[in-house]
Amino acid sequence: MLSKELLAYLQTNRRRHLGELLEILKFPSISSQSQRNAESLACAEHLAEVVRKLGFDVKLHPWRTHPILIARRDCRRPDAPTVLLYGHYDVQPVDPLNLWDSPPFEPAVRDNSVYARGASDDKGQMYCQIKAIEALLAVEGDLPVNVVLLAEGEEEIGSPDVEQFLTANAGLLQAQCALISDSSFFAPGLPAITYGLRGLGYLELTVEGPKADLHSGMHGGAVVNPLNGLAKLLAGMHDAQGRVAIEGFYDDVLPLEERERQNWRGLPFDEKRYAEELGVELAGGEKGLDVLVRRWARPTLECNGIVGGYQGEGSKTVIPAKATAKISMRLVNNQRPEKIVQCFQEHVRKNTPPGLRASVAVSSMARPVMISLDSPYMRAAQGALEEAFGTKPALVREGASVPITELFQRVLKLEPLLMGFGLPDDGLHSPNEHFHLEQYYGGIVAIAAALKNIGQLSR
Amino acid sequence: MLSKELLAYLQTNRRRHLGELLEILKFPSISSQSQRNAESLACAEHLAEVVRKLGFDVKLHPWRTHPILIARRDCRRPDAPTVLLYGHYDVQPVDPLNLWDSPPFEPAVRDNSVYARGASDDKGQMYCQIKAIEALLAVEGDLPVNVVLLAEGEEEIGSPDVEQFLTANAGLLQAQCALISDSSFFAPGLPAITYGLRGLGYLELTVEGPKADLHSGMHGGAVVNPLNGLAKLLAGMHDAQGRVAIEGFYDDVLPLEERERQNWRGLPFDEKRYAEELGVELAGGEKGLDVLVRRWARPTLECNGIVGGYQGEGSKTVIPAKATAKISMRLVNNQRPEKIVQCFQEHVRKNTPPGLRASVAVSSMARPVMISLDSPYMRAAQGALEEAFGTKPALVREGASVPITELFQRVLKLEPLLMGFGLPDDGLHSPNEHFHLEQYYGGIVAIAAALKNIGQLSR
Repeated sequence: MLSKELLAYLQTNRRRHLGELLEILKFPSISSQSQRNAESLACAEHLAEVVRKLGFDVKLHPWRTHPILIARRDCRRPDAPTVLLYGHYDVQPVDPLNLWDSPPFEPAVRDNSVYARGASDDKGQMYCQIKAIEALLAVEGDLPVNVVLLAEGEEEIGSPDVEQFLTANAGLLQAQCALISDSSFFAPGLPAITYGLRGLGYLELTVEGPKADLHSGMHGGAVVNPLNGLAKLLAGMHDAQGRVAIEGFYDDVLPLEERERQNWRGLPFDEKRYAEELGVELAGGEKGLDVLVRRWARPTLECNGIVGGYQGEGSKTVIPAKATAKISMRLVNNQRPEKIVQCFQEHVRKNTPPGLRASVAVSSMARPVMISLDSPYMRAAQGALEEAFGTKPALVREGASVPITELFQRVLKLEPLLMGFGLPDDGLHSPNEHFHLEQYYGGIVAIAAALKNIGQLSR
Repeated sequence: MLSKELLAYLQTNRRRHLGELLEILKFPSISSQSQRNAESLACAEHLAEVVRKLGFDVKLHPWRTHPILIARRDCRRPDAPTVLLYGHYDVQPVDPLNLWDSPPFEPAVRDNSVYARGASDDKGQMYCQIKAIEALLAVEGDLPVNVVLLAEGEEEIGSPDVEQFLTANAGLLQAQCALISDSSFFAPGLPAITYGLRGLGYLELTVEGPKADLHSGMHGGAVVNPLNGLAKLLAGMHDAQGRVAIEGFYDDVLPLEERERQNWRGLPFDEKRYAEELGVELAGGEKGLDVLVRRWARPTLECNGIVGGYQGEGSKTVIPAKATAKISMRLVNNQRPEKIVQCFQEHVRKNTPPGLRASVAVSSMARPVMISLDSPYMRAAQGALEEAFGTKPALVREGASVPITELFQRVLKLEPLLMGFGLPDDGLHSPNEHFHLEQYYGGIVAIAAALKNIGQLSR
């Protein structure tokens, strides 16, 4: 249990904690856009300075494009366990910009929420960790555990090569468990511990035809249009049942355990309300499965964008020389992205319309993750969430990928704990992303409580 | 026959005529991009000044977005026929900009060609007309016919509402025939008179799903992805034979006359070389038909661009709220764009995947055109081309649309003559558009000769 002094400190410092979050939200640290590289670096340096002021030994490690922050501060207790706290300072692109009610990098507080790109994913959640540490140090003069902070700058582009980074820096990152704050509550008022994540294979499928763009009047009818050909290829990737029609795609998908299905049916989730909130009919994905099963326990294939031809205002009568689809596949259970990408390539090889040439470039891959529900760290995290929010957390899976989670297990041999503070309607990756202030303040309490709980365990 | 004096004048003034063409090519008069509106207007004003200096009565008539120039100069002979000369000062967009060897609006002369957007389509060809008029006036002190110049600024966006303009200004545009210089030779050294043009229906098909962009990890599998749905719709618009699979699409297409097919088979056209030049296998369009038949006498449906999701550098895991395809259909014979658009809408209504909403917006429409080969004006034009280039012109159709041609017939009741000076490899609508200097200088001779020939006819 947290002390009254600590809770009072957090209450008193809310306004300052909010102001400090707004500062880091001003950096347009969009990792996928190279013209933002300088601003991403400035964001990392700002973060390093914030952590340095807490007495941490901080270093920005240069990596592929954006540096990775590692910071450490040990507590005075010699046999204390070490907790790695993970977040990321990079954010998604902001387009379509015209749908934002306030500029994405001019954070605005309204309706008891902070609106900005990265407010929830993940700067706001990362700041829950940092402010919890600040409060523990301010009130108690020490931390209950040794703390390693790890903040990545390329999570939104699939954490390329981060496995190599973790391997090379494993010595700096030794810990017993990792608190990852980059996920959501199941619903307002109902915190969640995420014990399963889907994996990811993200690739670009390029279809090439003529060597240059052609006038569609002069040459239309005589050449195969790469955009039409790409559409045909994409259309053939799902069958009439909504299943992915790529040979071998489902080979390593295990059937869902009945226990898990029943558990999810007990969650306060209404398919009809979910559809209303998104503004859709519920016709997506595989027929005959519960929505939560489709989102958490089944793999998918989605087109995320098509580049080619004319995309500006008005019209242009062009047959493009080539067209590229950005495609993401979410993976579950024993699916391995390497194998799925191979199946995809083989499908493309067999189904490319005559007259066109197709190629596949892999952008990023991440394996799916499952985490044990039986460890003492898991119990510490559950207790902390209940203490902070007054409710036992739901035990859920998540459809999205947090690629580093699986690497923490496999490379660093530590127990990952996905303890996130977003809400389902935060608008991640969308216009008007926001983070509820109560989630921010509650998240700080929860992290402080988790560190205290873990501090009571022996290493 | 043109006089020796006139030919000598044209020879002597080549360098100046080139320099003056370069001047107008510097204006980025991209009619489809509203941020270029001021520069398009400056282009129109420059053109007006050029024509005014030739003693024409010039007016820029404000129209939808870009003004239309009408200029008139009568000759002294009272019963002379009137020739309308048509060109357009607007140009296509320039992307992908990185594929241009020199900037599209910094005209560069190399390899005996002018490289710039609009060099061939259509500023270069329009200047053939203007420089022919200049030469006739300079050498002969008068024109052989009354001349009306009409220069449009919205041809590249389908000449919207130009029918209303022609109707409203029919009095100013009375003439016996129109020389339209906005087409190509059949091959280098082989001029062509185009007597058939395909029509056009250009539209935007928008497919909408969720009310906002969604994270494809969190929601993938539970909603229908508008991009995947759009791909499915597009894929269903062609059958396995390469025919357009929209009900009613071919209802008004007449079979090709055997005489025409044989005539085209006699043209110096090699399907294999054509494919090599474009860098494609010849697998496009309907199976079993000659390439020229597919390009000139059969309708098509092409996707010209898809907007939706993430199109920037790198990756973004998004299910877009909506996706839009730009689609152009080329039409022949008795097809009417209004009816074809209705068939398209009906097809979309019947085939939109459940869970998505689709809508169709028409961007522009033009009817197909056929022109009589038996008029005295047609013979005058043929003779002029033979005089200027030393070869009888081929009689061809063209796959592209010049929407105003059909309006000249129907609204102004005059005989359109498509006498163009481009070459097939000019790169219209593509990067590195260019115009061969010999085509420019020869085109000036041909227009002068055509005006002389028509001047010998009575009104």
